[in-house]
Amino acid sequence: MMNAQSSVTRDPLPTRPRVGLVGFGYWGPNLARNFQAIPDCEFVAIADADPMRLAKAGELYRHVQLYPTAEALMAADLDAVVIATPARTHYALALAALEAGKHVLVEKPLAMSSAEAQALIAAAAARQRVLMVGHVFEYNPAVRYIKDLLTAGVLGELYYLYSRRVNLGRVQNDINALWSIAPHDISVCLYLLEQMPVAVSAQGARYLNGTLEDVVFLTLHFPNGVLAHIHVSWLDPSKVRHMTLVGSRKMVSYDDLADEGKVKIYDKGVIRTTDPQYGEYQYRLHSGDITIPKLPLTEPLRVECEDFITAIREGRPPLADGHDGLRVVAVLEAAQRALECGETVSMSPAE
Amino acid sequence: MMNAQSSVTRDPLPTRPRVGLVGFGYWGPNLARNFQAIPDCEFVAIADADPMRLAKAGELYRHVQLYPTAEALMAADLDAVVIATPARTHYALALAALEAGKHVLVEKPLAMSSAEAQALIAAAAARQRVLMVGHVFEYNPAVRYIKDLLTAGVLGELYYLYSRRVNLGRVQNDINALWSIAPHDISVCLYLLEQMPVAVSAQGARYLNGTLEDVVFLTLHFPNGVLAHIHVSWLDPSKVRHMTLVGSRKMVSYDDLADEGKVKIYDKGVIRTTDPQYGEYQYRLHSGDITIPKLPLTEPLRVECEDFITAIREGRPPLADGHDGLRVVAVLEAAQRALECGETVSMSPAE
Amino acid sequence: MMNAQSSVTRDPLPTRPRVGLVGFGYWGPNLARNFQAIPDCEFVAIADADPMRLAKAGELYRHVQLYPTAEALMAADLDAVVIATPARTHYALALAALEAGKHVLVEKPLAMSSAEAQALIAAAAARQRVLMVGHVFEYNPAVRYIKDLLTAGVLGELYYLYSRRVNLGRVQNDINALWSIAPHDISVCLYLLEQMPVAVSAQGARYLNGTLEDVVFLTLHFPNGVLAHIHVSWLDPSKVRHMTLVGSRKMVSYDDLADEGKVKIYDKGVIRTTDPQYGEYQYRLHSGDITIPKLPLTEPLRVECEDFITAIREGRPPLADGHDGLRVVAVLEAAQRALECGETVSMSPAE
Amino acid sequence: MMNAQSSVTRDPLPTRPRVGLVGFGYWGPNLARNFQAIPDCEFVAIADADPMRLAKAGELYRHVQLYPTAEALMAADLDAVVIATPARTHYALALAALEAGKHVLVEKPLAMSSAEAQALIAAAAARQRVLMVGHVFEYNPAVRYIKDLLTAGVLGELYYLYSRRVNLGRVQNDINALWSIAPHDISVCLYLLEQMPVAVSAQGARYLNGTLEDVVFLTLHFPNGVLAHIHVSWLDPSKVRHMTLVGSRKMVSYDDLADEGKVKIYDKGVIRTTDPQYGEYQYRLHSGDITIPKLPLTEPLRVECEDFITAIREGRPPLADGHDGLRVVAVLEAAQRALECGETVSMSPAE
Repeated sequence: MMNAQSSVTRDPLPTRPRVGLVGFGYWGPNLARNFQAIPDCEFVAIADADPMRLAKAGELYRHVQLYPTAEALMAADLDAVVIATPARTHYALALAALEAGKHVLVEKPLAMSSAEAQALIAAAAARQRVLMVGHVFEYNPAVRYIKDLLTAGVLGELYYLYSRRVNLGRVQNDINALWSIAPHDISVCLYLLEQMPVAVSAQGARYLNGTLEDVVFLTLHFPNGVLAHIHVSWLDPSKVRHMTLVGSRKMVSYDDLADEGKVKIYDKGVIRTTDPQYGEYQYRLHSGDITIPKLPLTEPLRVECEDFITAIREGRPPLADGHDGLRVVAVLEAAQRALECGETVSMSPAE
Repeated sequence: MMNAQSSVTRDPLPTRPRVGLVGFGYWGPNLARNFQAIPDCEFVAIADADPMRLAKAGELYRHVQLYPTAEALMAADLDAVVIATPARTHYALALAALEAGKHVLVEKPLAMSSAEAQALIAAAAARQRVLMVGHVFEYNPAVRYIKDLLTAGVLGELYYLYSRRVNLGRVQNDINALWSIAPHDISVCLYLLEQMPVAVSAQGARYLNGTLEDVVFLTLHFPNGVLAHIHVSWLDPSKVRHMTLVGSRKMVSYDDLADEGKVKIYDKGVIRTTDPQYGEYQYRLHSGDITIPKLPLTEPLRVECEDFITAIREGRPPLADGHDGLRVVAVLEAAQRALECGETVSMSPAE
Repeated sequence: MMNAQSSVTRDPLPTRPRVGLVGFGYWGPNLARNFQAIPDCEFVAIADADPMRLAKAGELYRHVQLYPTAEALMAADLDAVVIATPARTHYALALAALEAGKHVLVEKPLAMSSAEAQALIAAAAARQRVLMVGHVFEYNPAVRYIKDLLTAGVLGELYYLYSRRVNLGRVQNDINALWSIAPHDISVCLYLLEQMPVAVSAQGARYLNGTLEDVVFLTLHFPNGVLAHIHVSWLDPSKVRHMTLVGSRKMVSYDDLADEGKVKIYDKGVIRTTDPQYGEYQYRLHSGDITIPKLPLTEPLRVECEDFITAIREGRPPLADGHDGLRVVAVLEAAQRALECGETVSMSPAE
Repeated sequence: MMNAQSSVTRDPLPTRPRVGLVGFGYWGPNLARNFQAIPDCEFVAIADADPMRLAKAGELYRHVQLYPTAEALMAADLDAVVIATPARTHYALALAALEAGKHVLVEKPLAMSSAEAQALIAAAAARQRVLMVGHVFEYNPAVRYIKDLLTAGVLGELYYLYSRRVNLGRVQNDINALWSIAPHDISVCLYLLEQMPVAVSAQGARYLNGTLEDVVFLTLHFPNGVLAHIHVSWLDPSKVRHMTLVGSRKMVSYDDLADEGKVKIYDKGVIRTTDPQYGEYQYRLHSGDITIPKLPLTEPLRVECEDFITAIREGRPPLADGHDGLRVVAVLEAAQRALECGETVSMSPAE
């Protein structure tokens, strides 16, 4: 299912792509800092409708061309456009950029519906351009380490995992906490499990604003009974970014905010035996050492930005390609329906 | 709704009730230790079908009469019987004890169905006996402190709460993690909110044993949009007993395993304002001091056992009376249905 | 130097020693509980001058003979006496017990001076009796695990270690925090390093009581530049029992109060190289995995009490024998002198 | 004693001082970033002897003039020079800058001896220039909050404090851990206590390099028995920056690396009473709430740099002036002597 994006770009590939950024709000400055530091590209343009933000961008990046609108930026001599604007604008801006012949990196979520996401994939394919989505945790060394553990079978059979990503703040006015925060957790789950859920359940509630959920509890039902439970909120006393994976042989805790080792591997499990005397099930715990592996200190966003540039230069799809973006949007759509109807919503096997 | 159990016991009230315990397995020894230490009762009898356990009980409590069966114990000269046996035996044993004219404290859950719980309430009422359930967290100083905060309006409007109670071990053979662990969280929620949920959602999965859920995610939907989310599991790398309450003015974290202060009160919140210029919603965070109140060091189980004895002596219902037990069982029943059908299950307003 | 106590006891060895306890205050009840639970001895007598404590002891141990004085207990038919009284009474009571032909386990510190400790060793040797001191951390699985690491060379060359043992409370009226608390840390250091310090420095201060230090900072200077720094206090906001060991290849943290693994092994270090170009020293850090080993859950005090009983039954010295007690007292004596004079005090090579 | 630096600068005061930085190694980039961001000054020059570092500086600050030597920079048209070079060069560079008529901010320690520090004070006074030292923790909101608590008497009588500042790394080749790390702790102690110690003790050891201590335990003896104990090391498995203050009425913990509240105020203490019956001392603990105050999020280094600029513009001494630098150097000198002789070293009352 995780099929590669079909071949891209048959023009002569740009050796040092010229990159422009649309949106210099919360996340845009981080993207700017990274593209500025990557030698294999030229970071040359920033657009933001807010004059104060644009001025701030100009102070930090004096050699960069500033544009008051995305349209103006897209008309410039650029190979690639990075879109870090509110979620509801992603589709239109990405489509415009693709239609202008640019390679595109869009912040998550890729779009607000599967139909939009599919249209972007089609537009990118038609013009042989890279389409990428900012699923930054797929580039996180801790997540990649855990994927290696799963692939190597270290955890045995994976039973379930759960994730909490909560904080006070970053309250959105246009999308709920599901669409704002959960794309991270969903993309990690799909990346780790390499399959789509067969069904999705969700509960949530709206406190600050009558129309948008501030807190959502989401359950993804994967084949073979594997569960992934996700709790997202922007209304919580503490900042938490924590995931636990429970396998038949080992278990893993991943705390993205830990000072001393984000990943802990627990040699813990339960073995079911049958009591020879009574024929009854018996459960025997084992509990051994805990290991905290040393992880590389690379900044995940840097690796993500580099993957975008390399994909452009080599004419290959990036890890977090349009199909990856579509899959996450499809899960978000199903979750939104589940949130509204209170029932578990099935997902069709076709993406 | 939290109506008091109707008047109990018109016989001459025992001034120093004679107490017997059925079940000396995992929890029974804690009950024995506490009843032994309460001056206002006499702890005089222990029954267990396992001869090893019974011998162990005899070593620790040399003056106590030992019985190989619950029936034998119930025939003895006792005022009260405490039942700490597997959950599926609670109903029959409690009913037998009530019919033998004993006051009864049953471990949670009170019974395996609302019908059973109602039958126990009726039996207790008919014979004017105390019927109590071991909802020990209602006697926990931290929970009571939080209830006082809620009652005094310190948190403002309560938005939602969530609870995690997970560990590795205590895997049950006869009931799933919902019925085994969640009675604690549900009883705390009902105690704090003083109302019943209007609907219940639940997801879970069975890994160790094809018929019993090892992990359950439960959402209680209360009137006015208040949510309570509960995560229970006996298949987790870490022991966690943590609850968070989010109010409009303050937020509370309750970590039952914390060394230095189980309760933290966060002066944190989000205020929604309307931007005068644009008419748009705006959210302003406030984040002030954190307070960790000093709590009494009383053992919750001691307070619970004392409430049982005092209820007997004074002819009044205890806090965790049969109705309380029924309410928790009713929520468990609805949750079990939700778990099986994947839909949010409504609860009728009548208990 | 760590020479074994010379052979003990040529009488027929008691197969199930009869044990009496003097002192049922803070620590005595823990000793009672353990000796009561050891099948290879008979716990038969308790003495305490305080009638309330004695009554409490009688309630818990109904079969045990109670004595209002240590003298009365020592006249009873006992093989062994355990002394858990204020430190300043240890010497006289232990001597009396040895002179009455009893095997003796004394709480730490063994005595208030080297001369006293030597007199006890001599008395035990003359009568071929076991003399043991309650250095309970030498029986702690975490400490023993660390000793195994050191012995196996896992840490490389041990550079230094430091220990903090502070809390609020257990303020003594008769001895300072050095004599009250530091025996634990000193006994651990001598046990781990298997040698005596060559010099001792100490600073402290008296706040609650003009004559007794509430807080002491102690430095033991071992051969080859190995340092052990110890911080003890009964006037601190937090309870801490933490030790760090720094070796040339690995480092260890030991937190006796940690919930999830008391010992952490850090694959960390600094390698000094010489820059080939400039001839200058250069330091290269390495920082690898952290391992948290699973330790046995045995109660250290149980292992200590069993060592006492086995030593009596087998006619061999226990691990924490009189010489071990003397070594700790000798370090305390030197530290007390250092505390008073403000200078580093040398210790003679003879114990 | 904490006498203000006598009046400075009678020239027309620069309204927007032109600032140059010498040293772009470990700490220099942080100073550059802050001076660059302060509107009341012009950050115009950077010198570093290492061409790679200088090139890096040029990339980040394109409008800034680059100099290969401190001498060249000092000859430029500057009002102020900031010195972030190895400690042993501080004196000569600061003196040269003052003699060139510049205002000077030197990283800690101000100099390597009291004599040098006094010479710098004299040179600054002679030319009416600001002389400041980078005691950044005096500008830390947590330290200032604690000072306010002390001033307001919230802690009652201050008994003692202790500080640990350890990590793996930043091993120096030219100065030991005392001179490299302890200036922070010493400056905080002097700032909080507003007096000089009367004596200093110190122990340490050299493991990586035969001539420089990697770990130092330092005790400052203040009037009235107040102790300050400081543990510094660059050879430790964990990064710790923690200070505890124990008062007669309350206690404070300050963890500079805590995520959720750096300062904790414990309503804890011990009250000594005399037992009316026996005339004996008795100690009664009290243990109340813990409070974690909300602190401003200002970057301490920003406040420090602003104090330097404002001091220049207003012709007044900064908080961390030359006298402050001298006091810390005087304590370091005494500590170095104590380290070498193993005895407690008295400090003369004159600074």
